[in-house]
Amino acid sequence: MSKVTPLKWVQGELLILDQRLLPGKEKWIVAKRAETVARAIESLAVRGAPAIGIAAAYGVALEAQRPGITKQELSAVIERLKSTRPTGFNLFSALDRMNQIIESGAQIKSAAFLKEARAIHSEDAAACDAMAAAGLSLFDTEECVLTYCNTGALATGGIGTALGVIRTGFKAKKVREVFACESRPVGQGARLTVWECAKERIPVTLICDNMVAALMSAGKVQRVFVGADRIARNGDSSNKIGTQGVAVIAAKFDIPFHVVAPSTTIDFSLGSGAEIRIEERTSSEVLRCTPGLEKVKGVSVWNPAFDVTPAALIHSIITERGIHRPPFNFTR
Amino acid sequence: MSKVTPLKWVQGELLILDQRLLPGKEKWIVAKRAETVARAIESLAVRGAPAIGIAAAYGVALEAQRPGITKQELSAVIERLKSTRPTGFNLFSALDRMNQIIESGAQIKSAAFLKEARAIHSEDAAACDAMAAAGLSLFDTEECVLTYCNTGALATGGIGTALGVIRTGFKAKKVREVFACESRPVGQGARLTVWECAKERIPVTLICDNMVAALMSAGKVQRVFVGADRIARNGDSSNKIGTQGVAVIAAKFDIPFHVVAPSTTIDFSLGSGAEIRIEERTSSEVLRCTPGLEKVKGVSVWNPAFDVTPAALIHSIITERGIHRPPFNFTR
Repeated sequence: MSKVTPLKWVQGELLILDQRLLPGKEKWIVAKRAETVARAIESLAVRGAPAIGIAAAYGVALEAQRPGITKQELSAVIERLKSTRPTGFNLFSALDRMNQIIESGAQIKSAAFLKEARAIHSEDAAACDAMAAAGLSLFDTEECVLTYCNTGALATGGIGTALGVIRTGFKAKKVREVFACESRPVGQGARLTVWECAKERIPVTLICDNMVAALMSAGKVQRVFVGADRIARNGDSSNKIGTQGVAVIAAKFDIPFHVVAPSTTIDFSLGSGAEIRIEERTSSEVLRCTPGLEKVKGVSVWNPAFDVTPAALIHSIITERGIHRPPFNFTR
Repeated sequence: MSKVTPLKWVQGELLILDQRLLPGKEKWIVAKRAETVARAIESLAVRGAPAIGIAAAYGVALEAQRPGITKQELSAVIERLKSTRPTGFNLFSALDRMNQIIESGAQIKSAAFLKEARAIHSEDAAACDAMAAAGLSLFDTEECVLTYCNTGALATGGIGTALGVIRTGFKAKKVREVFACESRPVGQGARLTVWECAKERIPVTLICDNMVAALMSAGKVQRVFVGADRIARNGDSSNKIGTQGVAVIAAKFDIPFHVVAPSTTIDFSLGSGAEIRIEERTSSEVLRCTPGLEKVKGVSVWNPAFDVTPAALIHSIITERGIHRPPFNFTR
């Protein structure tokens, strides 16, 4: 079990750890309505593709508790939650399951919705454990690894995806040290991965995102583990902006690049990554790191939140089903 | 001529634009002694390899004005200035010239030192113009370009190196738009390149350093121009941390990657980039972007200020002597 959790269901309310305030403050948002959950997803108070899916499922469960709510109203809640963020697929996987509960019963029974949300949560935790066990088999000797963004307990319902493998590897003396990229502009690596590793007493060294080539040139890492937000049938994987560049550089230095994600991340409707819709976010996310820049006139910002790593750059994709190697051809 | 200058010699004093405060504030440091110049170099108030060399030369000229100063004292000043930053070579090129003035005369004549510093300054400005003219010949049609760090008027004695080519290309309708990487952790791209482009009304779009692969995947840039801090005989080029990664990604996408630097950047004593000493800077430069992180215990930071781009990834190196193509074999 991880000491960290991003979501707690307590007495009919969803508590959401406000990850925007980490590592400075640990503050919980109390969600009594799905709209609060939707805004927490949009604002990145809760983030990480699996955690977003779980939060959204609980959001539906919150509304299902309301006396007299109709199927139509609950469907509208699902649509609202689906509109929050376009790229991560687990949100849609989870909400499709919640939608099936609406369709399967004649009436809204709140217990059925909470049960399904809890199942989505606990299945994700179990998937994390299975991915960690599978990932452990990759190591021969103790290694230093690089990770990107945050893929730990904060991003999932369990110990994490890529960071779950790393954490388990550390306990098994297969991982000696973790290098974490900042993951600009939101800093999920600098703020969240570093904080999680420090909590678990895993030796962690923070680098800027632009230091990956220098790190690999210097022989400081032997393997890369990242998560994913949506994976196409051919293995093309979208993940936090910057992942693709890490993969290109890792390939140049012959360093194995592994994607770790539960099968709820795989969008079987997509043949390739070219079909993945990439969310673009506000310029202020980028500008706020640079005092005075917002007042300079005539400056544009491009802020895609994700990029797509082509399958050709991926050594293996680890799901709860095991280690998948190229050529990838995911089927249900 | 550029509207921007990082250094002004006014009535026996050196005025240094404090680039740490840009783009928020334009404040000048008044240097009456070489020690003030040395600290301005160490603290990045003045930065950019050519500008550092010019500032250091003026630093020697400041001390040479002091009545009764001995050759030995002036040599110690040169040693102090050399100790400020190890990687950029123009500092050493410039100080070697100042040292020759000490050795060439029987007595210290302040006018000779000021004349040499002014010559270093104006020769750099002329080199910028020559590089821009040479670089212009690379373009067939109007293109969008990517640049890294700051290589403009703020970094040199003239219109800039890489940014000088871009600026000249814009005026000649060969450059349509500039994409500028932030260049973490000091943000010379976000703070300085964006500010210079905005001042010159060149359309500029800021991206995070980790967005280069996404940018190139999307076909948004056709060429990369960067500067250099020290170039070995074989063409291996050290430049701001992150440059190497951009070069690796550009090669993957078949996008020409050009280094633009005056010949004062070439260290003829080095056979390859493996011999270049890379400055590592304080962890606080990285941590200060992330509130609360300095209080998290057990976090290491790796903060190399430069990396080395291997010659094999460089399409051409543009100096004031023209366009050099591989295989590079620089001789005096």
